[in-house]
Amino acid sequence: MNSVSSHDRKWMRRAIALARRGEGHTRPNPPVGAVVVYGTGKLGEGFHRRAGEAHAEVVALDACRGAARGATLYVTLEPCSTQGRTPPCTDRILSEGIARVVVGCCDENSCHRGRGLEILAAHGVEVVCGVCEEEARELARPFFKHVTTGLPYVTVKLAMTLDGRIADREQRSQWITGAAARAEVQRLRRRVDVMLVGAGTVCADDPSLLCRLRGAGDDLMRVVVDASGRTPARAQVYTDAAAARTVVATTQAGAARKAADWARQGAQVWTFDADADGRVPLEPLLKRLGAAGVLHVLCEGGGRLAGALQDAGLVDAYDLFYAPVLLGDSRAVGALEGRGTLLADVLRWRCVDVKRFGEDVRIRVRRA
Amino acid sequence: MNSVSSHDRKWMRRAIALARRGEGHTRPNPPVGAVVVYGTGKLGEGFHRRAGEAHAEVVALDACRGAARGATLYVTLEPCSTQGRTPPCTDRILSEGIARVVVGCCDENSCHRGRGLEILAAHGVEVVCGVCEEEARELARPFFKHVTTGLPYVTVKLAMTLDGRIADREQRSQWITGAAARAEVQRLRRRVDVMLVGAGTVCADDPSLLCRLRGAGDDLMRVVVDASGRTPARAQVYTDAAAARTVVATTQAGAARKAADWARQGAQVWTFDADADGRVPLEPLLKRLGAAGVLHVLCEGGGRLAGALQDAGLVDAYDLFYAPVLLGDSRAVGALEGRGTLLADVLRWRCVDVKRFGEDVRIRVRRA
Repeated sequence: MNSVSSHDRKWMRRAIALARRGEGHTRPNPPVGAVVVYGTGKLGEGFHRRAGEAHAEVVALDACRGAARGATLYVTLEPCSTQGRTPPCTDRILSEGIARVVVGCCDENSCHRGRGLEILAAHGVEVVCGVCEEEARELARPFFKHVTTGLPYVTVKLAMTLDGRIADREQRSQWITGAAARAEVQRLRRRVDVMLVGAGTVCADDPSLLCRLRGAGDDLMRVVVDASGRTPARAQVYTDAAAARTVVATTQAGAARKAADWARQGAQVWTFDADADGRVPLEPLLKRLGAAGVLHVLCEGGGRLAGALQDAGLVDAYDLFYAPVLLGDSRAVGALEGRGTLLADVLRWRCVDVKRFGEDVRIRVRRA
Repeated sequence: MNSVSSHDRKWMRRAIALARRGEGHTRPNPPVGAVVVYGTGKLGEGFHRRAGEAHAEVVALDACRGAARGATLYVTLEPCSTQGRTPPCTDRILSEGIARVVVGCCDENSCHRGRGLEILAAHGVEVVCGVCEEEARELARPFFKHVTTGLPYVTVKLAMTLDGRIADREQRSQWITGAAARAEVQRLRRRVDVMLVGAGTVCADDPSLLCRLRGAGDDLMRVVVDASGRTPARAQVYTDAAAARTVVATTQAGAARKAADWARQGAQVWTFDADADGRVPLEPLLKRLGAAGVLHVLCEGGGRLAGALQDAGLVDAYDLFYAPVLLGDSRAVGALEGRGTLLADVLRWRCVDVKRFGEDVRIRVRRA
């Protein structure tokens, strides 16, 4: 294999930082970043802004104004080799005379899976794959899930006490965690396509669920799971400036009661056949979101919705924030209130990060 | 103030490591370590092994065989200036001609509180206090609690799922955490005087609660809180080789039912007036342990005992081990099953350490 230098890692990290700027906007495409470097100097850089617009490689090459011959292209994800809404990036890379392509990770889409790299190598381009691979793969993980299963990647974020409670016995939950943890949650919201919450959360807190870090080009959708139609039509999610991007997922019973009210405010109503417990079936909901191109769903609770996602095996990752408090109360609201499992059958997750945010601690786990 | 060098910190860390060897054996005295250094070479070192035996300073000075004139003494805790079972260490330090005394932390005992340091300084000894102060204070914290309140320091250790459950809905709890976390718990047991558990834990798991790291000189006591007398007299804690160091804390009702059986095995039975709920009152139990010289109690559950300690405001620190599993089950056993509190009234703890042990994460908090 070809050698990887700290120089390579430096530019790949730059490409990853660029790609992050596209997260939450590129669906159903992955966020990708690219940098073109000649010697030690950068000729151009770019990232994929949204589906239908130029891929990251093309944006970066365009920025070089034809000076890319003999240069190295750094790109977070294997370049595409197929005609989509835009021509294959491999063609453009070859026509520019790029000498070396350094890739973060291979595309797990079965149409690609290294094919782009083979084409480049067959034309004499030096190819290096797997630089900063963990971070590059992390960035592409929702896309890989979506492209291989049709379902979005689901992250559940919960803010809880050290004894695993997300609200006290009077259902109060504000504010368990501190300012630094809440700021991190805003950064997490910036990266996703959909904010998913249960009806109880909307009724209790009337949250906006928007990301305060975003600018005007906000694409964040909100999805409220409300089987029985108990969320008031005057809730923020249905009435604020972004209400047209709110979906209410409900059943016939809920729709009969509230669909007209919700729709009058501009929200979309998706009606599903209720499951045996009268609840909104979550896999069909996620499938419909996947079909709409959604890559990454962030669920911020409550405990029953998170528990139902967990029961259905639909969670890919958890971001768990623990505040240094203990309620010590068996009637307080549990983090995951589902049917649950027994220890003998429990799934072991992989702990990928532990980090402090002020006085709080975040434990991030994902499927092993 | 006098200057502190990396040299000073190096020797203080050595003194702290020595002191740790006495933890769990020195009650009602604190664990203390000392090193005597001349120039860059160590002349002698030592630690306090148990009450009635020589203090750490004396052990270290004895090891120097009279060569300590002009040397520096490093000691984790302010030397005593009063006559106890042994003469004041300040006298010995002065008679040896020690030129400089470097101390980890002042003694919070109102009889001392810097008095030893004043005596030394008044006799021309250079005194430096507060080197590696956090670690030195951590080591002395149980002693400070005991000497100022008469109560032992109480650490609650819980091994739980990420959603705060210590057992599943069928009460099964083995093994939530992995080998590295369990090894750390053995190191924690080595440092304490008493292992405290509820009757439910003894009935469910029949644990030994001993520390597998200890040698023959084991001083670890076990205390079982069993108000109604439901723990079987054949349980390990009552029948193994260390049974004479087991105390059953019970009420008149429990004693009437089981005291003879427990005592026959060699266990001690302490009978208390039941509280309004028929339970063993925990503060009187801790007071009696404090009166017996106990500095540090480690409670390893279960959820109801830990919850009762929390409710009574008797916990000083928590060592919380989280395994990367989620039960998602509202019927699973909560970490702290007490009367509890509301978020509006909750105590904020101080997070002092976050550390990974294999796939598990330990969050250590203590009173702010």
